[in-house]
Order: sequence, then structure tokens, then C-alpha cells
Amino acid sequence: MMSLAALVRARDAGKASPELMLALCRDAIARKDGRIRAFAHVAETAPAQAAGPLAGIAIGVKDILDSFDQPTAYGSQVYEGYQPRVDAAIVDLARRKGATIIGKTATTEFAFFSPAATVNPHNPTHTPGGSSSGSAAAVAAGMIPAAIGTQTGGSVVRPAAFCGIAGYKPSYRLLPATGMKHFAPSLDTVGLFAAGVVDVALFAALLTGRDLVPGDGEAPLDPATIRVGLYRCSQLESADPAMRDALSKAADLAASAGFDVGEIGEPEAMARAREAHATIQNHEAGLSCGSDLARFRDRLSGILTSTIEDGQAITPSQYDEARRLAKRGRGATRGLFGEVDILLTPSAPGAAPRGLETTGDPRFNKLWTLMGSPTINIPGFRDQAGMPLGIQAVARFGQDRTLLSVAAMLEKSFRT
Amino acid sequence: MMSLAALVRARDAGKASPELMLALCRDAIARKDGRIRAFAHVAETAPAQAAGPLAGIAIGVKDILDSFDQPTAYGSQVYEGYQPRVDAAIVDLARRKGATIIGKTATTEFAFFSPAATVNPHNPTHTPGGSSSGSAAAVAAGMIPAAIGTQTGGSVVRPAAFCGIAGYKPSYRLLPATGMKHFAPSLDTVGLFAAGVVDVALFAALLTGRDLVPGDGEAPLDPATIRVGLYRCSQLESADPAMRDALSKAADLAASAGFDVGEIGEPEAMARAREAHATIQNHEAGLSCGSDLARFRDRLSGILTSTIEDGQAITPSQYDEARRLAKRGRGATRGLFGEVDILLTPSAPGAAPRGLETTGDPRFNKLWTLMGSPTINIPGFRDQAGMPLGIQAVARFGQDRTLLSVAAMLEKSFRT
Repeated sequence: MMSLAALVRARDAGKASPELMLALCRDAIARKDGRIRAFAHVAETAPAQAAGPLAGIAIGVKDILDSFDQPTAYGSQVYEGYQPRVDAAIVDLARRKGATIIGKTATTEFAFFSPAATVNPHNPTHTPGGSSSGSAAAVAAGMIPAAIGTQTGGSVVRPAAFCGIAGYKPSYRLLPATGMKHFAPSLDTVGLFAAGVVDVALFAALLTGRDLVPGDGEAPLDPATIRVGLYRCSQLESADPAMRDALSKAADLAASAGFDVGEIGEPEAMARAREAHATIQNHEAGLSCGSDLARFRDRLSGILTSTIEDGQAITPSQYDEARRLAKRGRGATRGLFGEVDILLTPSAPGAAPRGLETTGDPRFNKLWTLMGSPTINIPGFRDQAGMPLGIQAVARFGQDRTLLSVAAMLEKSFRT
Repeated sequence: MMSLAALVRARDAGKASPELMLALCRDAIARKDGRIRAFAHVAETAPAQAAGPLAGIAIGVKDILDSFDQPTAYGSQVYEGYQPRVDAAIVDLARRKGATIIGKTATTEFAFFSPAATVNPHNPTHTPGGSSSGSAAAVAAGMIPAAIGTQTGGSVVRPAAFCGIAGYKPSYRLLPATGMKHFAPSLDTVGLFAAGVVDVALFAALLTGRDLVPGDGEAPLDPATIRVGLYRCSQLESADPAMRDALSKAADLAASAGFDVGEIGEPEAMARAREAHATIQNHEAGLSCGSDLARFRDRLSGILTSTIEDGQAITPSQYDEARRLAKRGRGATRGLFGEVDILLTPSAPGAAPRGLETTGDPRFNKLWTLMGSPTINIPGFRDQAGMPLGIQAVARFGQDRTLLSVAAMLEKSFRT
């Protein structure tokens, strides 16, 4: 894989020009993407920018986000050949910071469940996860150092887990969502992918200008001051044995690394909030995608059509009740993060399932999307077949810097 | 003006067909819009729908919201002739409820400050207010019974006040914003216009299916149980004498109508939140409109260009600090609405200013947009020149039904 941090260091040391860095990615895409099918569109001639913190960094952008210079199909035949007039806010921001948008990465239809053609780089008979399938696979296959995706249920953290890379879903609206094809705006969250935690943290910092990574000479975090809670939610019982093993090992390794590790139960209000996710998502999808349904019903998949219809049948009272449950859940989440700093939980029930018909299950992700909590997939573990198993770390809303710093230390300990 | 409530009653009693109701609007537009210039586009042949709670209701949609069957220019030459593929969520919802989108109403450029060509129906040398200029003027001129607009600062309540109609800005995200040209997503709020409060409340109820208006046979609200607070914010001193008079009279009339009226001061945290509005708005505009600036700088107005540039110069720390002030303000607002149910405050510093170069001042509106509180312009007062003076009622987040019910009673008392 290509490390964004290593590329930036090489560039800043004058050892690699932005043009060379870009050429490496073009070459890798030409060699690999025929097999991986991570890209919906490749910008064959997009040049490197000479300046900016992301100069020379080729990024893939999930094709649910608008780009003025490349077609944007939202994973749907309805939008084949559609050419937006302006970039999504996050795409424009990446360009302003010097990045090159080297292509649009494959997404499930409207970032929902109907899969793209992308395969898992670790085994092409397995799903790469979704909905940000191409973004995760392109990074995992070593074609690009970084990519942008979105998450409404588990669409950043799950494909990152299945592909064995870092996938970071920031606090709600830390990254702008304007210019994405919205499905459920109160959940839709822009997220980032890179090879490892340090890479994705640097990507986030360079993209936003936020203080998200430790500065040179800054004293390292003392792990003894960080309370890490192994999150005993009821979903845990339904995880694969290999995943449950990995989570135990993760907790042990965190303790060995000096973190203050314990177990913590799931408050009832958070379990109930998780159940409210579908009502909120589908009601909002019924509104956001209502015009697509009215105009293009025959060209949408069955699962999308029925979800939009379901959503339109949800009454305002049912929606309001679900929002109340979410609000109570957020209160309980704040309480929980009074007791721990970081939660550890699986990123998915197990490794990437065999088959390309589904993109896997978001049961370990959707609560955090609804709570707005920052989460990250930490790669490092594998199952007996060698497929990646992802551990998810979660922090309190707004504590993205702590999340990224702790996750970087945990990743190191997982890999030793 | 056309009363939406009267039209719906006539239709339901079989006294007016949807076709006839639509024809009345077409005729009024043909006769009046050459002078008022409220419409950016008129759908000459859009038919009436036979069914749905809004069947026969012709509505104007602010041209900042996408429509699949009519060009959508966002008030900008950059988007002249632009034809979205799908409707904005609120437009699709209106169609599903039976409404006819009879045209797109004029907006300032990107719903910011550069004015449209629309004039004030009460005096064509005065601004209609903005940014939802055409929506307010089209209703006020009696061309259509209802219109949809948006508010980021004061773009619903202010033009409603200047045009002497009801303008309702619901609680944040009570109406879906997907498919609008976003300026500052955490502020951008879809709102509604109609001749009077009862009309706009009925419009909101029929559009959303929400329980927002008293049912038949429901006991009327007892005004003695409603605490109305005349809001003594510091802006009040800068309002025109005619407006300060109107506000005093409004408080007196509310007391005469039996409401429990008092005065209430502005908590410091709310005053500081108001000051944070510009930082939040401009930073978000710097992101949302960054691609427009990069691509079309020469075709944007000077005020828009400089605001986007300003926004891009605001650091994440400055933005976060402004968000913290807003959060504290929301806490103080919750506290305030423990003491009163409804606040009364001017909708604008005075009547519509003479001249078409500006659309007036949002100083009485932007706090409530930032707080997410539902607000409404109650028409009824006029200055010595006969120009409308608007009184704004504000309620706690989520208390839209109370706001609309109380505002309807106040409107009645203002008109007697």
C-alpha cells in the first residue's frame, strides 16, 4: 500500500516530486484496476499541483460526491453521464489543498445496498464492503494513498475493515457534506481512507487545517491516562468467533501498551437509539430521494425503491419519536464518555463475507453514525484465511484528535 | 390576496375545481407579474392535479431549490439555463401532496444579498426584502396562495414582513433542505409563505402531514395559559420609531386578547450567539460555494466573492469557537423558553426601505435561524406611508404548533 505520510515526507524532503507521486498512482491504477474495479472513472490527464499541503497526493473520490470535471453517476444508471457544474465542498477543499482528483471511486447505488462491481483486493470472491467500496479497495490495492467516502450506516468503517485499511468517520459535519447525493442528511457523513491510522490522520489534518495530529516535539500521549472501554453491546454475541477473539486480543494488547483498559456495558438508551436508526434513515430517504422514485422508478433497484417507499410511509410522529430516542441516546453517550475516553468494538461482525451480492452488515456502525461520534477502523488483525478483521475505536463527539492519537498507538500495538 | 385556507374550503365544498383555482393564478400572474417581477420562470402549461390535500394549489418555489421541469438559476448568471435532473425534496413533497409548481420565484444571488428584479407590491420603489423576494411578493400581490422560500439569516421572515404577509421559518429541519443550493448548511432552513397565519399554518400541515393546526371541534387555546414575552434585546433600540410603536401596540393587543404578557431581557449568551452567526455562515459558505468561486469568480457579484473569500480565511478554531457560542446560546434559549412560551420581537428594523439596491437588514432574524427556533412574521401593522410593519413571534425548538396557534390569535387581535 502507499503511505500518505511517507509520500508527504518524501515530497517535503525533495525526494519525490508531485509529478512523480502522481505518475506512480497512474501506473498502479493502469496495472491493477482491471482486476479490482475500484474506479467508476479515471481522470487520465489530471495534472499534479505544484503547491499546497496535499500537492502530489492523488485521491479517489466516491462517486456519490459531485465533481465538475468528471462524470458523477451516484452508482445509478439514472445518472450515467451526469456532469455536475461544481464540485462537492469536500472535493473543492481537497483541490484547494493541492490534491489531484485522480478518479471517482465506485459506490453502491445512491450509497445504499446495491453493490458496485468492485472486488476485495485480499480475495476477489469477497465483497470489499460498501457503500464506499471503490475508495476502500483502491487504497487497499495500493493504487492511491488516500480516498474520500461517506457513511450513513457503516459505509466508511465497514469497507475499511473488510479491505484492511484505516477508515475514519469524523464527528458529524467536521467535514462538509454539501454536494453529495444525500440519502439521509442527518446521518450522511463524509469520511476518509488511507493505508494506516497515521496516514488518515495526516490526511484529515492537511485537508482541514485542523490540529488533529501531534506536532513535532510534542510529548506523546501517556496511555495510562486514557481509559479504554471494551464495549459490551448486545451485538457482540452475534459477531463471528474470529472477531470476538480479535477484540479480546485488541483489549489485551491495549493493556500491554499501557492503556487503562476495562469493560463497559451498553446503556439501554443507546441500544434503543440503534433501533431508531432505520426509521430516521428511511424517512429522510423518502424525502431526499422522493423525486428519483417519482421520475425513475423503473431504473432503481428493488431494495432502493422499497426503502424509499417504506420511508414515505413513516409518519412524522414515528420519525419524531425516533429522533427523541436518538436524542436520549446522545445523552447516554455523553454519560458513557464521562467514564471512558475510547470505546473498542468490532468494525463489522467478521471479515468480508464471500460473494459480491451484498456489502455486509452495518450493525456495529449505525449507532455511531446516528450519535455523530467520531470512529475509526484500526487495521491489523486477520482471520485464519488471511482476511482482514477490523477493530473500531470510538470517541466522544468533537474528540477527533484524541481518537486519532489513541488509534495510532493501538494500531502500532496490534501490529507487533 | 388569495387565502389558501379559503381556497381549500371552496375546493372541498365542491365550489371551486383544482383547474379553476389554478386558472385564477395563471390569470393573476399574467396581469401582475410584468410589474412585480416575482417570477424567474413561469410553468405555462403545468396542469392541476386531481387529488391530494394541495390539489389545485399553485405554489411558487424560490429559485434556490431544484426543480426537474423548470430551469433553476439560483439567482446567478452562472446557472442560467441550468436544468436539475430531480426536484429538491420539498418540491417533490409538494407535488406528492397535489400542489402545482406554477413557477420559480426570484431570489437574490445564491440567496445572499445581491437583489433580484422583484419590487415591493405595496410600493414598487421599495425593496420586497430578500432573499426570498419573489416568493413573498408573489403571494402579497395576490398572484398565488402560497410559496416556498429559504432562510439563512432573515430570508423568509424579513420579506414576509416587508410585503405584509405571513412567513413561517419552521424549527430547523422540520422541512427537508436536500436539493437547495446550500450556502451555510447548519443555518439554511426551508420556510413557507401565505397571505395570513392561518393560511401558512394550513399550508405547513397539508404539506407535511404534521399536526400543526387545531382540529375541528378542538377546544381553542386559552390565552391566559400562554406567557408572551416582549423581547428586550439590544437591537430594539436601533429599530425605527414606527416599529417600536408597533411592537408596543402588539404587546398591548396581546394583553387585551387575554395573553399573559410581560417583558423579558436578552441573556448575554444569546447576544453573543447572534454575533457568532456571521462566522458560522461565512465559514460554511467558504466551503459550500468554494467551487463556484474557483470556477466562476468573474461572474459572481463582489459581495458574494468577498464573503466566500472571507469565509475561507476563517480558521477551524474560529469556527469552532463560534459554534461553542451558538451552543451556549441554545442552552440560554432553552432556559428563556422555560420562562415564556412565545417571544415577540420586530421582524425587521422597520418597513421595507426605499430603493432596490439592498434587501434590508436581518439583525432581528439571524439569531433565531442560528438557534433553530421556529419563528413567524405576523402581518397587520403599517407605518404612516401605509407600508407593512411585521411583528415576529418566536417559540421553543419543536413547538411549531404552539407558535402557529398563538400567532393566528395574535394576528386576529392585530387586525381588529
